[in-house]
Amino acid sequence: MATLGDIGLAAAINILSAFIFFVAFAILRLQPFNDRVYFPKWYLKGLRTEPTSSGAFVRKFVNLDYRSYIRFLNWMPDALRMPEPELVEHAGLDSAVYLRIYLTGLKIFVPIAFVAWTVLVPVNWTNSNLEQEKGSNVTSSDIDKLSISNVPVGSQRFWGHIVMAYAFTFWACYVLLKEYEKVASMRLQFLASERRRPDQFTVLVRNVPPDPDESVSELVEHFFLVNHPDHYLTHQVVYNANKLAKLVKEKENLQNWLVYYKNKFSRNSSKKPSMKTGFLGLWGKRVEAIDHHESEIEKLSKEIAAERERVSKDSKSIMPAAFVSFKTRWAAAVCAQTQQSRNPTVWLTEWAPEPRDVYWENLAIPYVSLTVRKLIIAVAFFFLTFFFMIPIAFVQSLASIEGIGKAAPFLKPLVEKDFIKSFVQGFLPGIVLKIFLIFLPAILMIMSKFEGFGSLSSLERRSASRYYLFNFVNVFLGSIITGSAFEQLDSFIHQSATDIPKTIGVAIPMKATFFITYIMVDGWAGVAGEILMLKPLIIYHLKNSFLVKTEKDREEAMDPGSLGFNIGEPRIQFYFLLGFVYATVTPAILPFIIVFFALAFVVFRHQIINVYSQQYESAAAFWPDVHGRIVTALVISQVLLLGLLGTKEAAKSTPFLIALPVLTIWFYRFCKGRYESAFVKFPLQEAMMKDTLERAREPNLNLKGYLHNSYIHPVFKACVEDEDKKVDDDEKWETESVLVPTKRHSQRNTPAPSGVSGSRSSSSSSLRGASDF
Amino acid sequence: MATLGDIGLAAAINILSAFIFFVAFAILRLQPFNDRVYFPKWYLKGLRTEPTSSGAFVRKFVNLDYRSYIRFLNWMPDALRMPEPELVEHAGLDSAVYLRIYLTGLKIFVPIAFVAWTVLVPVNWTNSNLEQEKGSNVTSSDIDKLSISNVPVGSQRFWGHIVMAYAFTFWACYVLLKEYEKVASMRLQFLASERRRPDQFTVLVRNVPPDPDESVSELVEHFFLVNHPDHYLTHQVVYNANKLAKLVKEKENLQNWLVYYKNKFSRNSSKKPSMKTGFLGLWGKRVEAIDHHESEIEKLSKEIAAERERVSKDSKSIMPAAFVSFKTRWAAAVCAQTQQSRNPTVWLTEWAPEPRDVYWENLAIPYVSLTVRKLIIAVAFFFLTFFFMIPIAFVQSLASIEGIGKAAPFLKPLVEKDFIKSFVQGFLPGIVLKIFLIFLPAILMIMSKFEGFGSLSSLERRSASRYYLFNFVNVFLGSIITGSAFEQLDSFIHQSATDIPKTIGVAIPMKATFFITYIMVDGWAGVAGEILMLKPLIIYHLKNSFLVKTEKDREEAMDPGSLGFNIGEPRIQFYFLLGFVYATVTPAILPFIIVFFALAFVVFRHQIINVYSQQYESAAAFWPDVHGRIVTALVISQVLLLGLLGTKEAAKSTPFLIALPVLTIWFYRFCKGRYESAFVKFPLQEAMMKDTLERAREPNLNLKGYLHNSYIHPVFKACVEDEDKKVDDDEKWETESVLVPTKRHSQRNTPAPSGVSGSRSSSSSSLRGASDF
Repeated sequence: MATLGDIGLAAAINILSAFIFFVAFAILRLQPFNDRVYFPKWYLKGLRTEPTSSGAFVRKFVNLDYRSYIRFLNWMPDALRMPEPELVEHAGLDSAVYLRIYLTGLKIFVPIAFVAWTVLVPVNWTNSNLEQEKGSNVTSSDIDKLSISNVPVGSQRFWGHIVMAYAFTFWACYVLLKEYEKVASMRLQFLASERRRPDQFTVLVRNVPPDPDESVSELVEHFFLVNHPDHYLTHQVVYNANKLAKLVKEKENLQNWLVYYKNKFSRNSSKKPSMKTGFLGLWGKRVEAIDHHESEIEKLSKEIAAERERVSKDSKSIMPAAFVSFKTRWAAAVCAQTQQSRNPTVWLTEWAPEPRDVYWENLAIPYVSLTVRKLIIAVAFFFLTFFFMIPIAFVQSLASIEGIGKAAPFLKPLVEKDFIKSFVQGFLPGIVLKIFLIFLPAILMIMSKFEGFGSLSSLERRSASRYYLFNFVNVFLGSIITGSAFEQLDSFIHQSATDIPKTIGVAIPMKATFFITYIMVDGWAGVAGEILMLKPLIIYHLKNSFLVKTEKDREEAMDPGSLGFNIGEPRIQFYFLLGFVYATVTPAILPFIIVFFALAFVVFRHQIINVYSQQYESAAAFWPDVHGRIVTALVISQVLLLGLLGTKEAAKSTPFLIALPVLTIWFYRFCKGRYESAFVKFPLQEAMMKDTLERAREPNLNLKGYLHNSYIHPVFKACVEDEDKKVDDDEKWETESVLVPTKRHSQRNTPAPSGVSGSRSSSSSSLRGASDF
Repeated sequence: MATLGDIGLAAAINILSAFIFFVAFAILRLQPFNDRVYFPKWYLKGLRTEPTSSGAFVRKFVNLDYRSYIRFLNWMPDALRMPEPELVEHAGLDSAVYLRIYLTGLKIFVPIAFVAWTVLVPVNWTNSNLEQEKGSNVTSSDIDKLSISNVPVGSQRFWGHIVMAYAFTFWACYVLLKEYEKVASMRLQFLASERRRPDQFTVLVRNVPPDPDESVSELVEHFFLVNHPDHYLTHQVVYNANKLAKLVKEKENLQNWLVYYKNKFSRNSSKKPSMKTGFLGLWGKRVEAIDHHESEIEKLSKEIAAERERVSKDSKSIMPAAFVSFKTRWAAAVCAQTQQSRNPTVWLTEWAPEPRDVYWENLAIPYVSLTVRKLIIAVAFFFLTFFFMIPIAFVQSLASIEGIGKAAPFLKPLVEKDFIKSFVQGFLPGIVLKIFLIFLPAILMIMSKFEGFGSLSSLERRSASRYYLFNFVNVFLGSIITGSAFEQLDSFIHQSATDIPKTIGVAIPMKATFFITYIMVDGWAGVAGEILMLKPLIIYHLKNSFLVKTEKDREEAMDPGSLGFNIGEPRIQFYFLLGFVYATVTPAILPFIIVFFALAFVVFRHQIINVYSQQYESAAAFWPDVHGRIVTALVISQVLLLGLLGTKEAAKSTPFLIALPVLTIWFYRFCKGRYESAFVKFPLQEAMMKDTLERAREPNLNLKGYLHNSYIHPVFKACVEDEDKKVDDDEKWETESVLVPTKRHSQRNTPAPSGVSGSRSSSSSSLRGASDF
């Protein structure tokens, strides 16, 4: 048990390290040569350019203005200054709402901490249970005197804890309700005020059924011409262009090198640059570099053209999915929300993700495969959560002295040296576990990808919920009840439903000091370390010194990163869980959590404004998950308090707690019904309003031209941009009214409406566009 | 423990009583004066009239043709003869699919019984576990020798049971999958082949938000004109006409009496019929009956007119709900499946139920109230299930000798007489419980009504699922583990998750003989009793003798009843549960279940063809529930087998069973994804197909005239039929294009499309129609 002194020491160490991080950050960020590491977002937005000071050469790299160092914390007010609407404008709604999670934490826990300290701490403190027990073998810290452990068994004072549990729950629910309302209205406002975006008009159609007579493209067109006759505009089929993407990337790389050599040649035109053709230019025949690259690019271009031809001709490379665009947002909203076909496993429609949010590889998974994949991943995740220690233990045993001796006898003399022996024994097992934990989010991401989600945002959301579960079982329960998750599972299924919360509940107060330390290390120092951007800083300077050849390379060497919802959000949720669980048990933990939320809020606000560059914009689609997990934490805390009080023989007061989880779960369902649809459905009223406004403002809008090529595979995209002049030809196409002749006999009789401008022209033109690079 | 002899006796008794019921039925149904009791459906369809034999007067009441008695079972082949498509045509899809539940039972259990008897019975029989234990205090019957109890602890033979569990599960899932597929396609075909019905074009809109400037009707019209401009046709607001309904009913009753007296007068014109005005005509002033009734009707008509005026004028009697009709099925399908407004708790749209399926009282419940009601009912149902014995025990204590003595001392001398004493002691407690159980479905129905469902079919579905749960807890678990449900609950929450299935699993084999008797009493004799229609028979003849005054009364004295999904389906499900649970444990029970399914199939097929008259047609919307409950029974049986084998120390073989529930649950989710949407969503493809066909066949269809008045409260309906001639005037109305002037300033700017034929004309005409009775 840690005493107050121990905790003070830990706090001092962590505050100091946080302070050091901040000072280091303050110094590093002011150096011009780090500018691209600490302000990449402004570069990407084109709002900031290389600091070109008119002074000495050295000024270009080092900031010599001493005044700027004095106010080393002035980035904090700067970060807080930008108002929320501007932040939404600047960084997108996802980031702005992500910050609201921290704000929600503050809103919930500041009043709770205040009330807990004024009510519960005196209630606990004025007992002498622990002192009486000191005669026995129970050791207790000063922190424990503030906790529920200090209240004697059977005391009437537990009524205080129960009333507080109700008060905290109602306050938390109130804040959550308000936040859900606010976020939902922010989302709707964001969607409403957005500029025209292709995904507003577009629906992703998956599982197009195979047809012997018609190609996927023809089939899609016929289907939507028949079933949405007045609304269908155009469509784009999805190609399996993975090989092509590889080739294009290779070509880009070569082109980059070509630029590099040309630059070199222009600077020193006396000597033509030369290179070796072998691995990394280290060996092989020496050739004239510019010519070599030009010929290589030529060759690759041909290859790409052939591959592109193959992709566009070969029906096998067309996946049974398509992006179907409509003439109005209303029609797209209708199509996304309705079932198209009698068979609910084909012609699946969903709102199309943003073009940059699409995860192309997964678009073609058939329905049956999807359900099988779900089962496999569910089972796999169960084993990962509860049995992950088994392979780790195996690797750890390999990484032991005996293991190394057996596996690689020739290393035996080496590892038996004292220094190496102690390293192997002391650090290797820990490092093995740490490496696994570092790779865990990546493993979870791979699982989500295998499961078949079609957009990056949904992949991240899924990974986040898995990560939260893993954390809950292995970090929270694992810390409270020592022992591996598997042992816990085994003991839980052999315990009765009422004993499980008791077992955990009893252990909770004893672990308060452990979690306080955890919060300071992971929450305080960890968050302060985040702002230093150590990894991107090092990588940027390494790349800058060795690899950067062109300006474009320098652009690419910047690694702004993104919020990393799948890692960051479960981490925040862990603090919510700790806060709720300990609010009634050991309120002393709350100030530490509040400091975390406040610090993280400022740090991540700064990062979002200056650094992170989001890959996609899901318009806060993750909020229902966030809300759900906070409510889960609330219910867990209530059940554990129930278990804890059950052991305290507070028989009269405990039953009053049972209503609390029931009410909380009802609150969750209420919120779900009330707000969730704002995140998953698309009200027709809104769509109609935007359509009408747009029609009034731009009556002659060429929507087809606008949607043209918006949903083609990114590998086609780069090249299509050069083709913009071609669009003019397409315009001509569109004025004609094309009716695609069907090849199938039975469909000839269906009343295909006439006069719909041909989508085929568009799909074929997108191919043509792609064919020219 | 019952021996084989006991079971044989019970079987003999029950077979005999079933036989007696069938003979009684055969005799009664051939008597012409019972014709309306046993063939009401044909009367209601107008396909059968009073048997008018030309012979003697007695022939009109008694069938003297001895030949017709010989073939007393010939109704059975008759019942089986009608092919399924014709049955669908004759009795609706609901009834036809309801019969498929029995058929599913046969399909699942006949092969399972065959395999179980050829494999498991020999495996169990050739052990001698029970004989060895006979020395100890375990008593066993011959039935038990065929059961798993006869296999000694730790035997390798349990592998056989596990393999069989897999085989039975796979077979059951296969049958379920095929059935789901078949029923889904039957439903889609039924919906597709149906004649034009108002609900195909109509959407029920609930929670119309209040508006200070506009009435509900105007608001609905504006909203849909703006948001579905090309599709909106008309709408009908919902009136709160409960008082009006009462008055109309009263008037109908008086009119009936008037006819009766007029008939009487016409038969005996010498004396004008007179009556007394007091209660039931027993006392009061004697008046001239015909005049009195005519004046009363006159008075009521005025009252009705005033009330109707009030309902139609007073905005408070207009509920915030409306039936909105569209020009095409496609548009209705779109509107029913999409979210209309930014706020997901207003403008809730759902596919309108059939007009006769609407439960009018619930249409106006606001969203928040709905969620609160759900919570209340969930808690109430929990208490009803687990604590219903408490009030029963209280009433039983009141109904005891001492209780009566205390509550009503003047009865004391009476109840202390020997005969009455023994009756009170012996029967009253049982009767109290029985009365409660008889009223249980009604209580559950009231709970569902309170919960706020808007259609009769959904009310019945909800009640059925509650009844199933109640049966499972109180009949199944209650019989296996003796003790009240509350005691079980108490012991379960104090047992570990692995102990609960063990506790139940161990008790299962011992209860086999009890359930065999239960099946024979409830399943065999009970089903045979159903065909006798004893209650409707008695009531019909009572009414016919005393109350029937006119031909219309006779029509109304028939009580064909309906299938009673909320009572019947949970009862069938109980047999599925027993079948799955005992298939691997005591296969001897299976033949009894098969007999039940076969008998019930024939009996209910006969009843559906000749008797029942369904109140509504939901197109088999209940099948997902049926499927879900059968799968639940399967999972329960697997978990219980797992528990049972756990106690048999079959440690090696038991873990192989764990995969089975996981796979079964996955199967459920797969089926849900694959087929459920056929029951809750409405594919646009189908809608479009029907629309197109219709447009081709009847290009000049006046849909508005067709939908005119289809969704008005039943109380208006009767009167509107007289007004059909008025429709012609409305047609004129419709040709004009009416644009409703909005009163609200802000909406004046919304781009209301012009040229939509006024729905106001329709709604006001429905009022006008209603105003004339």
